[in-house]
Amino acid sequence: MAINAVGRDIPSHIEGYGDTTNRLFAGAFARIPEGNRDGGKIRAHGPKENGKLLSGIREAIAASGLKSGMTVSFHHHLRNGDYVVGQVIDACAEMGIRDLTLFPTALFGVHKAIIPHIKSGVIRRIMGSVNGPIGQLVSEGGMEVPVVLRSHGGRPRAVVSGDVHIDVAFIAAPTADRAGNISGREGKSACGAIGYAFTDAQYADCVVAITDNLQPYPIAPISIPGIYVDYVVQVESIGDPAGIVSGTTRVTRDPLRLLIAKYASKLIEASPYFMDGISFQTGAGGIPLAVTAYMKEAMMRHDIRASFGLGGITGYFVELLREGLVEKLMDVQSFDLDAVKSIATDPRHIEISADWYANPWNCGAAVNSLDVVILGATEVDTDFNANVNTEADGALLHGTGGHQDTAAGAKLTIIAQPLLRGRIPCVTDRVHSVTTPGEVVDAIVTEFGVTINPRRQDLIDACKEAKGKDAVPLVPIDELYARARKMSGPMEPVAQGDRIIGVIEWRDGTVIDVVRQLA
Amino acid sequence: MAINAVGRDIPSHIEGYGDTTNRLFAGAFARIPEGNRDGGKIRAHGPKENGKLLSGIREAIAASGLKSGMTVSFHHHLRNGDYVVGQVIDACAEMGIRDLTLFPTALFGVHKAIIPHIKSGVIRRIMGSVNGPIGQLVSEGGMEVPVVLRSHGGRPRAVVSGDVHIDVAFIAAPTADRAGNISGREGKSACGAIGYAFTDAQYADCVVAITDNLQPYPIAPISIPGIYVDYVVQVESIGDPAGIVSGTTRVTRDPLRLLIAKYASKLIEASPYFMDGISFQTGAGGIPLAVTAYMKEAMMRHDIRASFGLGGITGYFVELLREGLVEKLMDVQSFDLDAVKSIATDPRHIEISADWYANPWNCGAAVNSLDVVILGATEVDTDFNANVNTEADGALLHGTGGHQDTAAGAKLTIIAQPLLRGRIPCVTDRVHSVTTPGEVVDAIVTEFGVTINPRRQDLIDACKEAKGKDAVPLVPIDELYARARKMSGPMEPVAQGDRIIGVIEWRDGTVIDVVRQLA
Repeated sequence: MAINAVGRDIPSHIEGYGDTTNRLFAGAFARIPEGNRDGGKIRAHGPKENGKLLSGIREAIAASGLKSGMTVSFHHHLRNGDYVVGQVIDACAEMGIRDLTLFPTALFGVHKAIIPHIKSGVIRRIMGSVNGPIGQLVSEGGMEVPVVLRSHGGRPRAVVSGDVHIDVAFIAAPTADRAGNISGREGKSACGAIGYAFTDAQYADCVVAITDNLQPYPIAPISIPGIYVDYVVQVESIGDPAGIVSGTTRVTRDPLRLLIAKYASKLIEASPYFMDGISFQTGAGGIPLAVTAYMKEAMMRHDIRASFGLGGITGYFVELLREGLVEKLMDVQSFDLDAVKSIATDPRHIEISADWYANPWNCGAAVNSLDVVILGATEVDTDFNANVNTEADGALLHGTGGHQDTAAGAKLTIIAQPLLRGRIPCVTDRVHSVTTPGEVVDAIVTEFGVTINPRRQDLIDACKEAKGKDAVPLVPIDELYARARKMSGPMEPVAQGDRIIGVIEWRDGTVIDVVRQLA
Repeated sequence: MAINAVGRDIPSHIEGYGDTTNRLFAGAFARIPEGNRDGGKIRAHGPKENGKLLSGIREAIAASGLKSGMTVSFHHHLRNGDYVVGQVIDACAEMGIRDLTLFPTALFGVHKAIIPHIKSGVIRRIMGSVNGPIGQLVSEGGMEVPVVLRSHGGRPRAVVSGDVHIDVAFIAAPTADRAGNISGREGKSACGAIGYAFTDAQYADCVVAITDNLQPYPIAPISIPGIYVDYVVQVESIGDPAGIVSGTTRVTRDPLRLLIAKYASKLIEASPYFMDGISFQTGAGGIPLAVTAYMKEAMMRHDIRASFGLGGITGYFVELLREGLVEKLMDVQSFDLDAVKSIATDPRHIEISADWYANPWNCGAAVNSLDVVILGATEVDTDFNANVNTEADGALLHGTGGHQDTAAGAKLTIIAQPLLRGRIPCVTDRVHSVTTPGEVVDAIVTEFGVTINPRRQDLIDACKEAKGKDAVPLVPIDELYARARKMSGPMEPVAQGDRIIGVIEWRDGTVIDVVRQLA
């Protein structure tokens, strides 16, 4: 056991994960990379080998050389509509392939269909976000090997640095051509950006594109060029459009949440970043979207234009782009139909890879240029540590997403959340799991006001200068915590066993926390 | 000494190049790659290290860690207007850096300014195309170490496979932002596609962008993302627009060349590839452009549309795109103003990297999908071997370009050339240097007709079937050679010494020929 920089006991060896001695979280920017980037197997497809088009997923699995014990990667740009993970794993099972390491960017509810394959041993290990039912299974001890959670930037870092070497990457392709050029912009399963798949295409030993919209060569525009893609398979459907994109994303109408959004935008307005050229990421949650709406008003009032909006992009950002309030959008995944339409037609709407978005180990990810990010969290503590992975009962139900990356990159990281969810407090003295360390969280905004990390005296000063209708109601963290305790009453400690069922990596590959099996 | 597959004596060791025993050309598709792709040094630019903008080229050289003996790379998208190579090498010389390996994609007449730095030892070695004056210097023995010539696809292959590891890549950036995002589409030095720079950005240990058009972050569209770029330098000018792009490229008006173009298009029309979806590359030469013009007529007459045009793109191809006769353009370098304007605005005009264009060691370069390519050559021989590197006097004056790659990839490779240039025959019994082996050359077209490689009996048959106004005048190679001999009279053999001053690699990294010093 050793205690890492956020005070967590980390065993020196974690069964099914490895030694942690040189991998203890030591601070948000402490780990310096060494050595060179990894490389996938060199292939040489000549003009005679142009026949990439195979007749089905089983044929592609056979051609890829996939064997028991290997690592297969998937990407969540089809979100809860994805049919690709299920079809591929079903085929592996039929072919007698076992002990796979599943390396998805994220799994969703739709993927509960693979639970039988976990139980039967086709899948032995999962490295990736497990949202929902698979997380529940894991939390209850349903996998022998701990799940490894990485952020959107930590995952490409692991691939680029060789921490994870992908044997076969399966890429869901809303549009593809016979040479394996891929785009997410068009087709019946259009999803917009396919940012999570780029790095795997570049670094895997074999890449299979699975499409339900095969178009004549060459498609245009092309997101991932066929020079990285070994095989193309056409299937009837790669996903359910209803699960891929929301029709519209909605701003919250809940007065409590609107109040929180109002406070968050007051904080932004009072900050030194509220000026021409400001940039922000607000995601698709109800509160963040409401912040976007308030920011729009504020920007118009002050005649300010934003330089770019980042992240998962929604129709709200597209509206800002069209109205000239935001100059560019940098999009790693497109959340709704408006975002999908926009990225397909507007050159100011830039598709970026997850590496480009958030990898801490390149020459500067987009998050580094971010002024403001609005995030959520299951809970935060009096050290400003944030937990997004486990629920109040200790169950591992959520992936890290871009939480760590944007928090580390942005100049102003805001966690905006009601103080209670039901009877459960969101502010505590010690979060159950640390996803993101307090050193990169600047403010917590609740319905009771704005709580600024004491580390950011500059922000506290800036807020105190804002007067009258711009005044920012400040609440010290101890007061906020006391209020939460009073409102929620005494909380039972989470009942958990000893066995580690999840490892939470910080974006640089160090272990920031572990998750134990539910009792 | 050993004799390679095109009958050339290759020493088993070439001073300044290395052993060739396992690197003898053995056939166009004989060499199978092993192992994994190379990787550049992993860097970690955090939000605090966002200051990529340096005050000058010397500062960037110092920051890059460039030292004597290292390898520096450059790219020729500014062609004969490039100021970047000169500025960087001047600065290296001033800083006392010596013994550099220069790894440009190509050098042009404008680069004769670096000749003093070759003579003084700042540059010890050149791996890259040497067009014109530097070629002349090398041919006369002006460098101690042989020049290594690689094709547009062979060069990224060398980088990706680790044959060449780049210490510092300097990229001329017609537009850049503070984060090092780069585009060639806009700015006073706009050049369109910057396809040659992509692979170096991905694989070099350090990347410096040099721009004369620094724009607010983020620019859009972005060709090379800043995640690969360590430093950005703003200078007054990176190039002379007059040397970067031609105002217009012109079809030849010479009746002899028009006749050759006419014959070439008859051959294409008679071939099995002349159907809906045909694809072609015709480059920027006078005859190939005339072929494009004839092809346009033929396509309109037969109601045929091409799927894509490839390569260096000219206004002629842009016209075909606009008129709907070509569906897409795949552009590695944009030759004229119309091409630059088109790639900046038309999403059907796709920018591709040299790796994507032509590398034999990936999952299928664009050349593999090519139906027809029209090429030139200094000379071809009765085995259909082509020489584009050396002139009639044996001087090494030209780079390989995409000659090898398109010839190997296309289904129909045509070399179209007058039989004589001045008094010098273009058809001989043995070319002075082999650039491209006869096994991938299908036809030679001269003012005397169409000469088909006997290996392609299917093409000969197809031509014989064409009758009347579509008839293709066929001339056997022996007859063509006899005619050339008769017209030119006896030729003096090239006077050359023993010392090897150039190594011509086939695109797979094997040695297809060597070039010796002029006597």
